[in-house]
Amino acid sequence: MLIAALLFDDLTPLDVVGPLEVLARAPGADVVLVGRKRGTVRDPRTHFALAVEASLDEVTTADVLVVPGGFGIDRLCADEAVLDWIRRMHATTRWTTSVCTGSLLLAAAGLLTGIAATTHWASRDALERYGAVYTEQRVVERGKIITAAGVSSGIDMALHLLARIGGEQLAKAIQLSIEYDPQPPFDAGSPAKAGPELVSFVSAAAARARSARRSR
Amino acid sequence: MLIAALLFDDLTPLDVVGPLEVLARAPGADVVLVGRKRGTVRDPRTHFALAVEASLDEVTTADVLVVPGGFGIDRLCADEAVLDWIRRMHATTRWTTSVCTGSLLLAAAGLLTGIAATTHWASRDALERYGAVYTEQRVVERGKIITAAGVSSGIDMALHLLARIGGEQLAKAIQLSIEYDPQPPFDAGSPAKAGPELVSFVSAAAARARSARRSR
Repeated sequence: MLIAALLFDDLTPLDVVGPLEVLARAPGADVVLVGRKRGTVRDPRTHFALAVEASLDEVTTADVLVVPGGFGIDRLCADEAVLDWIRRMHATTRWTTSVCTGSLLLAAAGLLTGIAATTHWASRDALERYGAVYTEQRVVERGKIITAAGVSSGIDMALHLLARIGGEQLAKAIQLSIEYDPQPPFDAGSPAKAGPELVSFVSAAAARARSARRSR
Repeated sequence: MLIAALLFDDLTPLDVVGPLEVLARAPGADVVLVGRKRGTVRDPRTHFALAVEASLDEVTTADVLVVPGGFGIDRLCADEAVLDWIRRMHATTRWTTSVCTGSLLLAAAGLLTGIAATTHWASRDALERYGAVYTEQRVVERGKIITAAGVSSGIDMALHLLARIGGEQLAKAIQLSIEYDPQPPFDAGSPAKAGPELVSFVSAAAARARSARRSR
């Protein structure tokens, strides 16, 4: 099972590391980390710099495609070479997946027109502008497309996918191996649970961070 | 607030990416990714190759130290230069933290002798051999040392730590920004929940993976 993950500058590292930490533990899994070109992509916030193993034209097929999100997704949604690659990959994948605003790229490529999908809660309007049907669930599966909500949801998505690919026992074994028995100290992980004040605070902080990235 | 994270070959990427995705979102946070030497560290399973920004002797102090785990931790526990660095850093940190088998390195450096701490469930005996008091909790805080259980627990640990550093509202805001509203499709994330059959299966698979890494 070949898992291709798309890397790009200004991605959110947990969006891609969460699902790959799960999926790469499946027996027979192999991974290829794909980018616009070979080299390194960077997330200035966490300082993580990740190596890109293969350029778009070096990877033409995979069993599973993983598209993470992050501030950098806006640029990709206007990049015809990337959009073409997404369409070509999707033509032969067994599963096409996204985490967070990665679903905007699937939508920009035309994969989600009229299709139920999710994204980071703050990007629901953007997803709908691309013609997808925003669906307030952590993991949304429609046909062979699985979209996940914000950042940390990629772990849940990958366990869901593993159960589809290898059965429930495999997914449970890998859940145990990463000791995924979540115990967040607070219950503020969704807009409904966090309440309007925290939602406004986080939305404003994200807008500032996004515009700071653009002006670099 | 300077957060120093230790990177090394054969680390578990989610161990370090989980907490940094949380901690780096705090206002005024800065990160330095430290390794034995500048260059790149690799995890063969996920293919992630992470850039090391600074060598051990280039970083002498930080507010928060994050030590992840992974198969590579065994080599580090026998590496006097790394053990010395851990001791020197710990002398001035505000918080010294570990995820998964990262606690074995803290213990090997003598930081956990007689101290309650946790680690990945499969490494409890190893932690006790180093003189720590294994404690079956997801996050264990003793003085300024916070240890977390296996792999995915670093996200919970980082939210716990953020609440300590910046208060509950900050931790909740960042929980919302990474949409950390976990919904694992199964409830098999701890040995007690998964049951003895899955525990044996995962332990055997981990032993095979560990010995495969050693023979490379």
